[in-house]
Amino acid sequence: MGRIFNFSAGPATLPLEVLEQARDEMIDWQGRGVSVMEVSHRGKAFIKVAEQAEADVRELLGVPDDYAVLFLQGGATQQFALIPMNLSGPEQVVDYLVTGQWSKKASAEAKASRKVNIVADGAAGNYTDVPARASWKLSPGAAYLHYCPNETIGGLEFHEVPDVGPVPLVADMSSTILSRPVDVRKFGMIYAGAQKNIGPAGLVLMIVRRDLLERVPETVPPILRYASQAKEGSMLNTPPTYSWYIAGLVFQWLKRQGGLARIAEVNRRKAEKLYRAIDGSGYYRNPVAPAHRSWMNVPFTLPDAALDATFLAEATAAGLAELKGHRSVGGMRASIYNAMPEAGVDALAAFMADFARRHG
Amino acid sequence: MGRIFNFSAGPATLPLEVLEQARDEMIDWQGRGVSVMEVSHRGKAFIKVAEQAEADVRELLGVPDDYAVLFLQGGATQQFALIPMNLSGPEQVVDYLVTGQWSKKASAEAKASRKVNIVADGAAGNYTDVPARASWKLSPGAAYLHYCPNETIGGLEFHEVPDVGPVPLVADMSSTILSRPVDVRKFGMIYAGAQKNIGPAGLVLMIVRRDLLERVPETVPPILRYASQAKEGSMLNTPPTYSWYIAGLVFQWLKRQGGLARIAEVNRRKAEKLYRAIDGSGYYRNPVAPAHRSWMNVPFTLPDAALDATFLAEATAAGLAELKGHRSVGGMRASIYNAMPEAGVDALAAFMADFARRHG
Repeated sequence: MGRIFNFSAGPATLPLEVLEQARDEMIDWQGRGVSVMEVSHRGKAFIKVAEQAEADVRELLGVPDDYAVLFLQGGATQQFALIPMNLSGPEQVVDYLVTGQWSKKASAEAKASRKVNIVADGAAGNYTDVPARASWKLSPGAAYLHYCPNETIGGLEFHEVPDVGPVPLVADMSSTILSRPVDVRKFGMIYAGAQKNIGPAGLVLMIVRRDLLERVPETVPPILRYASQAKEGSMLNTPPTYSWYIAGLVFQWLKRQGGLARIAEVNRRKAEKLYRAIDGSGYYRNPVAPAHRSWMNVPFTLPDAALDATFLAEATAAGLAELKGHRSVGGMRASIYNAMPEAGVDALAAFMADFARRHG
Repeated sequence: MGRIFNFSAGPATLPLEVLEQARDEMIDWQGRGVSVMEVSHRGKAFIKVAEQAEADVRELLGVPDDYAVLFLQGGATQQFALIPMNLSGPEQVVDYLVTGQWSKKASAEAKASRKVNIVADGAAGNYTDVPARASWKLSPGAAYLHYCPNETIGGLEFHEVPDVGPVPLVADMSSTILSRPVDVRKFGMIYAGAQKNIGPAGLVLMIVRRDLLERVPETVPPILRYASQAKEGSMLNTPPTYSWYIAGLVFQWLKRQGGLARIAEVNRRKAEKLYRAIDGSGYYRNPVAPAHRSWMNVPFTLPDAALDATFLAEATAAGLAELKGHRSVGGMRASIYNAMPEAGVDALAAFMADFARRHG
């Protein structure tokens, strides 16, 4: 069949151009008679792929030289456990802001090895808003403050970087990375699982201020040290080369779109169209505080959950797939990352209006 | 150009049929209008891929039901650090047999968190032979004994499973997994990075006796616990789905080849042909004790290292690529994993004879 509009939260849709290039190069990459999947990570051909990908990330995000760019494994969740081990001593307090399920999971993994202070927790409001800045209880001397700028499940996004003073800000940007320009200098560390805005699952992009890497205690095994990965160009062991290659194709595609300022305009417009389709319908509902509605993940409910199955079946039949909401939230969720064309959002909005008309 | 014979040690050559199928399905997988790379790991379609891959591993290797089969991330090297954390308490001794660079690295990572006893170390013989069994100094009460059945760099392989009594045997099979039948019951744990005999880099296959998983101390963060991954079908977080899919295609290919008994015959024949080309030449030399020569990685030297560059250039021109030996050993290395056709070994042997004739 033809390509559909795939609203999966992740692993998520990728640019068709990227997949076409990957397909065309699968058997014979660069006229070498091999797939990029089959070559040594230490060979010149792959090193060029790796270096170009790093250079493109630096260009797209404006990463300063005193920040390392790492390509790691294990998913963002593994970093939930490794970040406290790398960025703090065993006796130090680490601060966590909890605004949804992912920031909560991050704090839970940190608790196994560190003293965790929950700065604020939006649970009482069912994670539909960010707790007021004035209510945050920062620890004096915390090693860092961790937060999640976009909660994929709740659809809650920070549209500004919070001011937390001198404490290094650590941000799980898995579902918002590269969707808009960001001032990297405001962060101690940015990291993201690849499977939403970067490439295939199994790759992690990390941007970290180099001085923070020196904090790692002696007791952390060498392979789990970000400092060692930074020193070895993320090749302390064999990296996930094919995922790195696909990520590189995505970065090139992003540059062809005009970079992050340009893609941010598109993303903003896509999100506005979808929220308008929800709010203007008198039928669908999104529970998130307007100031914190996500550009990337848009959850919405129907007036009657009994209609969910019909909505999903009809949407799928119309080529609008993977709209089922997360099991913990219910309803629908449209994930509209960079690679979701504006035409996909238009088609979804039109379908929603039609569905409401027929079933409302 | 056409496909070449790629002797890379890893990431290594894959079966052409597998790459062709991956290419053909890249844009539109199973008529779904998406790539397998773009679908949720929790969706029915991918779960079927994941379950089939596990079933095929169980069938190919005859994995008993009381062993879990895990698909993990981080490479085998990350397991070097996580295995001691998962399979032993902080005060327990762990035994390591060192027969080359990979088993040595494994012991070094373990030292960060545990008391490591080196059972024996083949360094004195430059890792060209396995230290005599009688010389091994096992610790009473060791949590496990770790060894590497095939050292990729030195080309040293165990053709029998060593008898170490009741202590659980933990084997890094990265470069020998699935190359021959193996009696899983003799092991507490088998694990392997995918990039030699399984699929793309970034995936780890682990087979572990379930009772050993219960040993994990409370202090290990949840995401780093094998027990949790076993409980959640290796989906505690998003797994490297595309690599898992490719691995599944390789397993299907292996079954079409007739399974491990059949592929072992081919592997034995390929290795014998290559060692004959070396020993019979009076020109090339392999330093490994004949009883422990690897079926998978065949290092060899020329009489004069000054000819190495010429050999490599001529071989590459003849479509025989990636023959340069590891930087720590020098000379040449031909990695002849499952996916290297016998015709590739024949072509290499013929080239070697011709080269010796012209330069000898």
